Amino acid sequence: MISFNNDYSTIAAKEIIERLTQLNDQVFGLGYGTDDICEQARQKIKDKLGNQSVDIHFLVGGTQANAVMIAGMLRPYESIIACDTGHINVHEAGAIETHGHRIETVNNINGKIDLKACQKLLDEHFEEHETVIRAIYISNSTEIGTIYSLNELKELRRFCDENKLYLYMDGARLGAALTSDENDIAWTDLCNYCDCFYIGATKNGGMIGEAMVIVNDDLKPYYRNLMKQNGALLAKGFILGIIYDTLFTNDLFENLARHGNKMAKLLKDGLVKKGYKLLINSPTNQQFVIMPNELIKQLEKEFVFATWSKGEKESCIRLVAAYQTTEEDVQSFLSCV
Amino acid sequence: MISFNNDYSTIAAKEIIERLTQLNDQVFGLGYGTDDICEQARQKIKDKLGNQSVDIHFLVGGTQANAVMIAGMLRPYESIIACDTGHINVHEAGAIETHGHRIETVNNINGKIDLKACQKLLDEHFEEHETVIRAIYISNSTEIGTIYSLNELKELRRFCDENKLYLYMDGARLGAALTSDENDIAWTDLCNYCDCFYIGATKNGGMIGEAMVIVNDDLKPYYRNLMKQNGALLAKGFILGIIYDTLFTNDLFENLARHGNKMAKLLKDGLVKKGYKLLINSPTNQQFVIMPNELIKQLEKEFVFATWSKGEKESCIRLVAAYQTTEEDVQSFLSCV
Amino acid sequence: MISFNNDYSTIAAKEIIERLTQLNDQVFGLGYGTDDICEQARQKIKDKLGNQSVDIHFLVGGTQANAVMIAGMLRPYESIIACDTGHINVHEAGAIETHGHRIETVNNINGKIDLKACQKLLDEHFEEHETVIRAIYISNSTEIGTIYSLNELKELRRFCDENKLYLYMDGARLGAALTSDENDIAWTDLCNYCDCFYIGATKNGGMIGEAMVIVNDDLKPYYRNLMKQNGALLAKGFILGIIYDTLFTNDLFENLARHGNKMAKLLKDGLVKKGYKLLINSPTNQQFVIMPNELIKQLEKEFVFATWSKGEKESCIRLVAAYQTTEEDVQSFLSCV
Amino acid sequence: MISFNNDYSTIAAKEIIERLTQLNDQVFGLGYGTDDICEQARQKIKDKLGNQSVDIHFLVGGTQANAVMIAGMLRPYESIIACDTGHINVHEAGAIETHGHRIETVNNINGKIDLKACQKLLDEHFEEHETVIRAIYISNSTEIGTIYSLNELKELRRFCDENKLYLYMDGARLGAALTSDENDIAWTDLCNYCDCFYIGATKNGGMIGEAMVIVNDDLKPYYRNLMKQNGALLAKGFILGIIYDTLFTNDLFENLARHGNKMAKLLKDGLVKKGYKLLINSPTNQQFVIMPNELIKQLEKEFVFATWSKGEKESCIRLVAAYQTTEEDVQSFLSCV
Repeated sequence: MISFNNDYSTIAAKEIIERLTQLNDQVFGLGYGTDDICEQARQKIKDKLGNQSVDIHFLVGGTQANAVMIAGMLRPYESIIACDTGHINVHEAGAIETHGHRIETVNNINGKIDLKACQKLLDEHFEEHETVIRAIYISNSTEIGTIYSLNELKELRRFCDENKLYLYMDGARLGAALTSDENDIAWTDLCNYCDCFYIGATKNGGMIGEAMVIVNDDLKPYYRNLMKQNGALLAKGFILGIIYDTLFTNDLFENLARHGNKMAKLLKDGLVKKGYKLLINSPTNQQFVIMPNELIKQLEKEFVFATWSKGEKESCIRLVAAYQTTEEDVQSFLSCV
Repeated sequence: MISFNNDYSTIAAKEIIERLTQLNDQVFGLGYGTDDICEQARQKIKDKLGNQSVDIHFLVGGTQANAVMIAGMLRPYESIIACDTGHINVHEAGAIETHGHRIETVNNINGKIDLKACQKLLDEHFEEHETVIRAIYISNSTEIGTIYSLNELKELRRFCDENKLYLYMDGARLGAALTSDENDIAWTDLCNYCDCFYIGATKNGGMIGEAMVIVNDDLKPYYRNLMKQNGALLAKGFILGIIYDTLFTNDLFENLARHGNKMAKLLKDGLVKKGYKLLINSPTNQQFVIMPNELIKQLEKEFVFATWSKGEKESCIRLVAAYQTTEEDVQSFLSCV
Repeated sequence: MISFNNDYSTIAAKEIIERLTQLNDQVFGLGYGTDDICEQARQKIKDKLGNQSVDIHFLVGGTQANAVMIAGMLRPYESIIACDTGHINVHEAGAIETHGHRIETVNNINGKIDLKACQKLLDEHFEEHETVIRAIYISNSTEIGTIYSLNELKELRRFCDENKLYLYMDGARLGAALTSDENDIAWTDLCNYCDCFYIGATKNGGMIGEAMVIVNDDLKPYYRNLMKQNGALLAKGFILGIIYDTLFTNDLFENLARHGNKMAKLLKDGLVKKGYKLLINSPTNQQFVIMPNELIKQLEKEFVFATWSKGEKESCIRLVAAYQTTEEDVQSFLSCV
Repeated sequence: MISFNNDYSTIAAKEIIERLTQLNDQVFGLGYGTDDICEQARQKIKDKLGNQSVDIHFLVGGTQANAVMIAGMLRPYESIIACDTGHINVHEAGAIETHGHRIETVNNINGKIDLKACQKLLDEHFEEHETVIRAIYISNSTEIGTIYSLNELKELRRFCDENKLYLYMDGARLGAALTSDENDIAWTDLCNYCDCFYIGATKNGGMIGEAMVIVNDDLKPYYRNLMKQNGALLAKGFILGIIYDTLFTNDLFENLARHGNKMAKLLKDGLVKKGYKLLINSPTNQQFVIMPNELIKQLEKEFVFATWSKGEKESCIRLVAAYQTTEEDVQSFLSCV
């Protein structure tokens, strides 16, 4: 069956598997991410970001990356703002809370943070009976495929500076965001406006892996200790080094993401042309389409995808394209609706 | 340089890389370890264990496996006994404590738990000013390469039953233990005497992965929730499925471990013959040898290995063999001492 | 200045201070709440509740009582539902989260839990990416002075039974609730419908103290360990015993609460008569009144009270009566508006 | 029965009960320790300490004070050193660990910290597989009644400075320590050598209460938030203010403690004269005496006291004197041995 279920349903981009095969007779003297290939991968990422002073750490998965970073960012009595649809707020099984931290929520606007609502929250948190808000969590692209503009990112930075908050970007789908047709954020902007963020490989052709980039000096010390304490320091760290080194060679990371976006756009344009409504205008690899329940039932016989929200007659389905999605996959789907 | 540094310094056994290559064009419809190949791998492990009713979950690394299992095993006020040299007690950066649990320690006897000392601890923990001891942690093979005998395991079980304790075995090097010449514990014994244990792949030719086996029904519910909450539920779970399916096909798991033990024995016998003393008589792939500091300095120029404990004139070094270690590697080392 | 600021602004009902004075030459052989007077107080409470099998523990304050009970009730991956205005959700500085648990919120209806919204939440929490909801938190009286009816309590019980949830009642102001003119819940109902609840002394004339009543057998074991671990096991536990023994002698507990309610009703009736609007029709000792900001400013010169929510022209103030409030206090206030 | 069981078996020094009685008709406008009498008590303590810049917070009990302070002092991956007999290590039911922190232990020397052993621990904690040691915990007087000398305190400070550690003193029995005949530490020394410490009232005639003194500016911010989050911010904070204001008026705090020490010395001298051996030469209000089990059995019929450690023929009992202990109590005991 053709799958539009998610962007993590294949092992890895072939370049990565080839590299693993090629290096499989090598003995890596040092474990835990201290080896040469990890260092080389970090250097390539730093060059891409145009920033040589960031710290970069390779973690295994997104929930782990979020939990470890936020645990390191906050004192026990501090909280982080996320919008109601934020991944940490709805799909991480209490991973932030298990580290003792409260997520303060604001309603989302198109999957994004509403700064007016943040200001209201801050106004209400003024004494010791409430948590001390210390950070804002955003994801780019968001849970519903939308992306932040450079202006929005600047505005977030200004707000965070004014209120002494850290700005943390969940980049599980950062590739999709940065290679979107509508994106105006450059790699080199990221370090200017975020205190920390991660560059997700799992959902962009990497086998495993999320590269945490720490920009703010206050957040750098002892991050490896935090990782180890949380079971996030991979013994064979060089595997993550190989994955990222490959992804950041010859623009593979962008090329994989761009392809996913392109296939999603094909799908979106085709569906809109056929008269289907979208939940939201997503410029990335996730599309949310409203369809009659009858049709959804039929499509499920030939395609794998998720139902995002159920209605009595119509429902919203999520269609995700990725690096391995082909034009044929898309055409097959379009021909069935 | 030839490395005896550890048993996690290469990517993976070639069979695993071949399998990943072969399956790389496949689309796995389901994530998070719910796919068919994970199920197939679980079945092979169940067959090996001679137990169809255990739950099996694939985690990424050892510290993660320990922390998640122990967090699931204990109520907030409960603690676990480990011996002073236990991995959770000295090398996991507070991973157990970060989940709120105290490790109560007893002195080790040859790297193993001393039940008399455990009884003393239990006697001292009788009121609400102390933690409630609920489990015993052992590792097999231990941190210093020794292994538990079947009788010792039975005795531990009896003690745990008498005192209502769970028995948890850290199996990061379970392969080395079970394939040791001196071992008398069968795969099928494990489920009879442990409440839970894991079968480590990271240190036995797997790329990543630890397979947690939960025997006791009380520990089974909601384990996947615990994993997710702790960032231990891999999105591309099928990768772990592929690794374990490969390891448990044609006895690959045992063959890899047996080879490591064999190479370690060659090394040990050679060194003993040459008059070097051992810290402990280890029957597995880790050897601990006392050598003059001068010699160690020279050896470090040609070999990678760890110094276990430093003395003024002599020190103890750790030499680890693994599936990729060759007789030539061993002979090279022996010829230099 | 006359204070309507809160119900915890005096040391204690005079009967309690007299008792402390009287017993001050006594030596209590046993600490930590294991003495005779604690036992005697427990017995009086059990008799009042018409239930001899509950466990009763004396804690110091409300946030502590909530945090310890909820920590004992939930497994690491489990969460508790509260309404948005719930004390644990807004005024405990992350005390529940610091124990690792997420609060799942529903909008309140008159300060109370909306079961339809709870059902929706439960429907959305069905897999390991979300927390497992295991309990409902209510307070009686609520944060805005409203109370649960017996029918509502029965309905909550039925819902909890159907969904395998614990029902926990925060009784910081249980006295005010049970002695309200509009109340139809008897002391003897509490154990029939709640799994656990506490009887608050701090806000009803006690010097310190909250008596946790554990009805459900599953929640009883090792509660003293939880208390100790959380610094909630008072060394001089007999002081709490004396306070509760006094409060539960000659109906002092109810008499104190009834007086507070009576004074609040006088205030409410007087204000309504003068044309002021109420935020909500509260039948207990807390009243929420809408007043012009100008008037509020003037009143603040002679009375102490809290502003609940600020508007541009009008705001809502909270007026709290308690056991020490006199008719003269009330008349003074009424004469100024 | 006459009790030598502990120093927290009576309600409070009569001056405190009198003060509570006297102030019981007063309305305290502000809660949570922000009232005038708390401020007045803080000022008296600051004057006693000769330091106007410390922060002082009133908590309820010792375990709570330790847990909240240490939680505020450490980052998630950091640990604190205590000696094996330290209260936090053996009698707080995992209160430090429940906040996620590991206690690293060293063997005690006369109940006190051994700096050589601390150095060894630090040497072994050098990478991310171990916790980062950030603080040393001491208690004065110690669990076995011994006290630190000024030189020892200076030496601890020097060691902590060299190793960037905080020095935290548990002062549950600070009164007994400072008023001991053998003490040479002045009140004014405490702020020079400790980063934080508390002045215990519970075990020195106060009804409840421990006054945390924070000297190091790094530890001051948001301490009230930490207290609230941990259920340690008493609503009726003025009660603690009254207790401390009374204790620090006319040297009551020292006078109560000195009396306890004096009675303990009478007891000790009498027992030594009669030929009994002491476990340790304690210069404070706790005495540890070796006695035949037969005699202990007989004494238990007329006196309350604790058995510290049991032997086959002889055991060690703990005899604690306090402010309410009389010479007659002591003579009664002596006449029975």
